[in-house]
Amino acid sequence: MRVGILGYGNLGRGVESAIRQNNDMELVCIFTRRDPASIQPATEGVLVYSVDDIEKMQGKIDVLVLCGGSATDLPEQTPEYAKYFNVIDSFDTHARIPEHFANVDRVAKEHGHVALISCGWDPGMFSIMRLYGSAILPEGSDYTFWGKGVSQGHSDAIRRVPGVKNGKQYTIPVEEALEAVRSGENPVLTTRQKHLRECFVVAEEGADLAQIEQDIKTMPNYFDEYDTTVHFISEEEFAEKHSEIPHGGFVFRTGVTGLKKEHKHVIEYSLKLDSNPEFTSSVILAFARAINRLSEEGVSGCKTVFDIAPAYLSPLPAEELRAHML
Amino acid sequence: MRVGILGYGNLGRGVESAIRQNNDMELVCIFTRRDPASIQPATEGVLVYSVDDIEKMQGKIDVLVLCGGSATDLPEQTPEYAKYFNVIDSFDTHARIPEHFANVDRVAKEHGHVALISCGWDPGMFSIMRLYGSAILPEGSDYTFWGKGVSQGHSDAIRRVPGVKNGKQYTIPVEEALEAVRSGENPVLTTRQKHLRECFVVAEEGADLAQIEQDIKTMPNYFDEYDTTVHFISEEEFAEKHSEIPHGGFVFRTGVTGLKKEHKHVIEYSLKLDSNPEFTSSVILAFARAINRLSEEGVSGCKTVFDIAPAYLSPLPAEELRAHML
Repeated sequence: MRVGILGYGNLGRGVESAIRQNNDMELVCIFTRRDPASIQPATEGVLVYSVDDIEKMQGKIDVLVLCGGSATDLPEQTPEYAKYFNVIDSFDTHARIPEHFANVDRVAKEHGHVALISCGWDPGMFSIMRLYGSAILPEGSDYTFWGKGVSQGHSDAIRRVPGVKNGKQYTIPVEEALEAVRSGENPVLTTRQKHLRECFVVAEEGADLAQIEQDIKTMPNYFDEYDTTVHFISEEEFAEKHSEIPHGGFVFRTGVTGLKKEHKHVIEYSLKLDSNPEFTSSVILAFARAINRLSEEGVSGCKTVFDIAPAYLSPLPAEELRAHML
Repeated sequence: MRVGILGYGNLGRGVESAIRQNNDMELVCIFTRRDPASIQPATEGVLVYSVDDIEKMQGKIDVLVLCGGSATDLPEQTPEYAKYFNVIDSFDTHARIPEHFANVDRVAKEHGHVALISCGWDPGMFSIMRLYGSAILPEGSDYTFWGKGVSQGHSDAIRRVPGVKNGKQYTIPVEEALEAVRSGENPVLTTRQKHLRECFVVAEEGADLAQIEQDIKTMPNYFDEYDTTVHFISEEEFAEKHSEIPHGGFVFRTGVTGLKKEHKHVIEYSLKLDSNPEFTSSVILAFARAINRLSEEGVSGCKTVFDIAPAYLSPLPAEELRAHML
């Protein structure tokens, strides 16, 4: 399977490295909006093209992985490049998924390609777990917790505070809340009861630390509804301890069965990820394999992770899956 | 969706009670090998027929749920009744799945029905988790733990020991093993290191307790490779504390990503079930919904949980799933 990457940031590099772990895949080229000469792929022999030349690669790529951002890149890129390729993206603006799906579906069908949007772990594997859970236990409750991990949006917000030189924010699920859900007692949890926010800040020299802390903790939407802690650290400590992008989280479905609803059940799915972009990339590639197969079967249109039978994700033939994994 | 049940044991009763939790389903009838007059369904208006009359219900049932045992019932029943109905079973003899699949597939295709075999949680949801895990993290290890829960086979084995009046066996995952896996250190675990076996025994009056304990602990295949504890309790305590059928377990996939394989990831899926048969039934019904839909689309043949796209399991339309669950 021949793969192309559009966008060589954290996610694009993650896809590149994950392709090396999948023997049935080959990275053909990377497309960039920057000067192609400025990009040094980690993989020998991989060509770098300007995105302006992307049409010329039609027929030479089985799946194009779109590694742009959800705010402005993907709403334009995914429908645009579904004209030329099977495409997959990690569009994660939950509220705009229906609109994005409709745009991509129309183009993909017109041009006979398969597209898959909103792939990764949330949306993605977590969504699949929510769906399985609610289908299996129709009378029950869903809980999703995120972390411990780096929130890019909240880290960006910290860095916009006056006097802040660098900053990183970790979202942390509250242990008592996890335990309450696990026990099957179906708690109703406020925003504050579910997650903590922990910030590591490198301040500019001479900055007013109390003011920075106050600005962060009271920031509307981002921090005001949470219990937030702010740690001021040196640039060296920041570089040493906070240069990675870990993440993870938990999806629960709790529910009851029985003639008298007398039996409780708890389904828990959790991820502990050293690298958010690399794990996301790994999920994307498994689903890229699936849409390539669907395309070979003559399918077209936009799909989501909900539409993909698990067998399509594996390089192993169906007989082997049944014999060894079922 | 009109559902029939064949076999009114723990699983059959679980299916009956789960149907009440799914508004799009209706229990039409129960088939039994016993005298139909001896069966009292919990649901009003449900008819009970002899299995000899099963052919007469052709066209009146959308999916027949086979609730027999894997040793002798299902290998005969599933191919036989795939002649007349869409069928689903919980065949769990892992080693014989390929053979069972082939038998059922042939008949289902000949008669234009959809069959789904080996549904439940293991095989079933645990299998799906093993597949997702290995597709996402190709360089990694799988771990499956069972329990804490009642093993029917081991409980039966205890009850065959001379001097034992009643007995129940709980399989318990070893906490240190779970923690070692969770930490991502990829331990190699022996049978003994993974699970404990805890037995609760009601002895016949005057029985030699030391001999019973010895007989249990040294029983080949069942207990000799495990650390086993045996508790002798009264009939009253047994009835009070050990009449339920809880179970559960854990599936892990741990793996690495990155150019230097420098990032670890841990995927964990776990179940804590108050009632093994009721949860199994709940999984079966979600997949019964899926095969009914596939049948309406004109599909035929044998499927497994690997072949079912998650969206087929939910009563909600695709647009709603995308808008609210993705």
